[in-house]
Amino acid sequence: MSNLISESTALCASIKAVEEAWLEKARARQLGLTKPPGSLGRLEEIGNRLSAIQQTVTPEVTQKRIYVVAGDHGVTAEGVSAYPREVTAQMIDNFLGGGAAINVLGRHGGIEVKVVDAGVDADLSTRAGLISVKKNRGTANFALGPAMKRAEAEQLISAGVELARVASAEGIKLLGVGDMGIGNTTAASAITAALTAEDPARHTDRGTGVDDPQLAHKIEVIQRSLAINQPNQNDPIDVLAKVGGAEIAVMMGLVLGGASNRVAVVADGFISTAAAALAVKLCANTRDYLFLAHRSVERGHAALIDLIGLEPLLDLRMRLGEGTGAALAMHLLDASTKLLREMATFGEARVSNKD
Amino acid sequence: MSNLISESTALCASIKAVEEAWLEKARARQLGLTKPPGSLGRLEEIGNRLSAIQQTVTPEVTQKRIYVVAGDHGVTAEGVSAYPREVTAQMIDNFLGGGAAINVLGRHGGIEVKVVDAGVDADLSTRAGLISVKKNRGTANFALGPAMKRAEAEQLISAGVELARVASAEGIKLLGVGDMGIGNTTAASAITAALTAEDPARHTDRGTGVDDPQLAHKIEVIQRSLAINQPNQNDPIDVLAKVGGAEIAVMMGLVLGGASNRVAVVADGFISTAAAALAVKLCANTRDYLFLAHRSVERGHAALIDLIGLEPLLDLRMRLGEGTGAALAMHLLDASTKLLREMATFGEARVSNKD
Repeated sequence: MSNLISESTALCASIKAVEEAWLEKARARQLGLTKPPGSLGRLEEIGNRLSAIQQTVTPEVTQKRIYVVAGDHGVTAEGVSAYPREVTAQMIDNFLGGGAAINVLGRHGGIEVKVVDAGVDADLSTRAGLISVKKNRGTANFALGPAMKRAEAEQLISAGVELARVASAEGIKLLGVGDMGIGNTTAASAITAALTAEDPARHTDRGTGVDDPQLAHKIEVIQRSLAINQPNQNDPIDVLAKVGGAEIAVMMGLVLGGASNRVAVVADGFISTAAAALAVKLCANTRDYLFLAHRSVERGHAALIDLIGLEPLLDLRMRLGEGTGAALAMHLLDASTKLLREMATFGEARVSNKD
Repeated sequence: MSNLISESTALCASIKAVEEAWLEKARARQLGLTKPPGSLGRLEEIGNRLSAIQQTVTPEVTQKRIYVVAGDHGVTAEGVSAYPREVTAQMIDNFLGGGAAINVLGRHGGIEVKVVDAGVDADLSTRAGLISVKKNRGTANFALGPAMKRAEAEQLISAGVELARVASAEGIKLLGVGDMGIGNTTAASAITAALTAEDPARHTDRGTGVDDPQLAHKIEVIQRSLAINQPNQNDPIDVLAKVGGAEIAVMMGLVLGGASNRVAVVADGFISTAAAALAVKLCANTRDYLFLAHRSVERGHAALIDLIGLEPLLDLRMRLGEGTGAALAMHLLDASTKLLREMATFGEARVSNKD
């Protein structure tokens, strides 16, 4: 893997489309299991895709890990969030202390949770267990100019790719990405508007809970940011650098790196899906390795889901981030593989098949 | 608990509506946890209801059990199913051997699976681990007259109530009901048509996979059955006895018995929800203890969901039964309680709250 993502052709070339032949083999196995054909619905589809990803009809995703990636956003200077900026760093300590929602759901689902500082505006060098890939203490205010230099965005993507490679080398079979960053729904809405070339008003929502006047202001800030930065709809790295964020860059790299190592990746909600959409835009085959955990209540999410062309697994009106939806969805992915591995066939169980 | 359900007033009187005061206390606790208000969506609603059911803001559902209830149906003589009748008994052995989908998902979710013979057309007396509450080897063909005598239906409901009481005494905090019975989508569609007083054509689907001519025949059989039996829409036990089934009766009792013992109950898919709808029709407060696991692809399910007035947790295009959807949904219910118990508060984690 190159250190800089500029040679993205090499990275994209390393991400192979899954083979129809493996999907066929998995479908054939499903037909022999003691259930009416197709009766497990999406669990069968998921299991079949995991079969194709792992190139076996008995896939397994026992070893699971979620990276919670945090970064601060210069655009918070515009007053776009309901919470103060320092919450990003405070939540890092909450993650490391095990008291956040993602910690609870990680323990519940047997999922390792790793915390990554992609660009938090605080000196966190003393924090044991925190992975730092930080280049800057927060992005620049993209209402005034680009959030990051292109080279910085590329370095952060590469850092995410490398984290995924290490995870794969450590035996991780299912990777999740989640976000933390006050102000990052503003970035995700800007990315959505840039990728769809549609009015930000269609893709901007309340984030952690802004009121009506704040929402109108948030939309106006994004409109202004796009006008100033003019991100290129067809260049995902340009979009990321101009109106994205550091945690989004690292998550984009994690998605690409998972796919490059034939590891399935679960994107969480709105912010994670923005990262995943950028990854799919850069290397289309990435989609074959990607699962969308849940449908967020953030209105911009629907457009990203449509862009990627995958159906989320859950719809629980969540909008927390941190990877919380990914943690819940992993239980379903794991279930789909266990069904393929552990269910008896009609022959083994001596059950009469359909006439 | 009386042996016969005829005195259903006593049973219904034992099922208390959950208290708004407990819902309020749970909502207050949610507001103090380190997340934006409401950001965990339905997980918060579920957690709050489990709080009210257990009368504590730190509910727990660690001990989980699913009863897979099996029965045969006389109406299979009309040729309404894609699978032969003997599959019901064969699947009992598959459940006891641990090779069915529900066994896999039970192990995956840390859920005990118990198998109940409510009326299978086979001598299963030698099967270790099988709970028998059987009165008859299958119901009568309800296309010709009532499926069961009212007294038999009442005895089977009582047996289900008693199973729930025992489960509660054994420490079970979350109960699931699932079904097995060749022909039972025909019974569930007939129940749905009876409870809604609508044409069975609106509520009848392919079950395990009948083709178009078989589906048309299945609808005609149900229309004929309702015309012959004239079930009373306002008497759920009459509906159950005339066009229901033995497994549906026992599941109805399990739902009532769970509610009576303040134990939350998860109904699985179409057949289980038919049982739950009958239970709610008999004793309205039962609804407060009930969770619907998933939206089945069987078209009749939507009408039952509307009748009960609860929103299913999952939508994965499943239609297997056995409690498979309930097993997956239990992971979400358990998650909702762990979030209430284990998440740090803003004060504990020193995280700044919303301005």
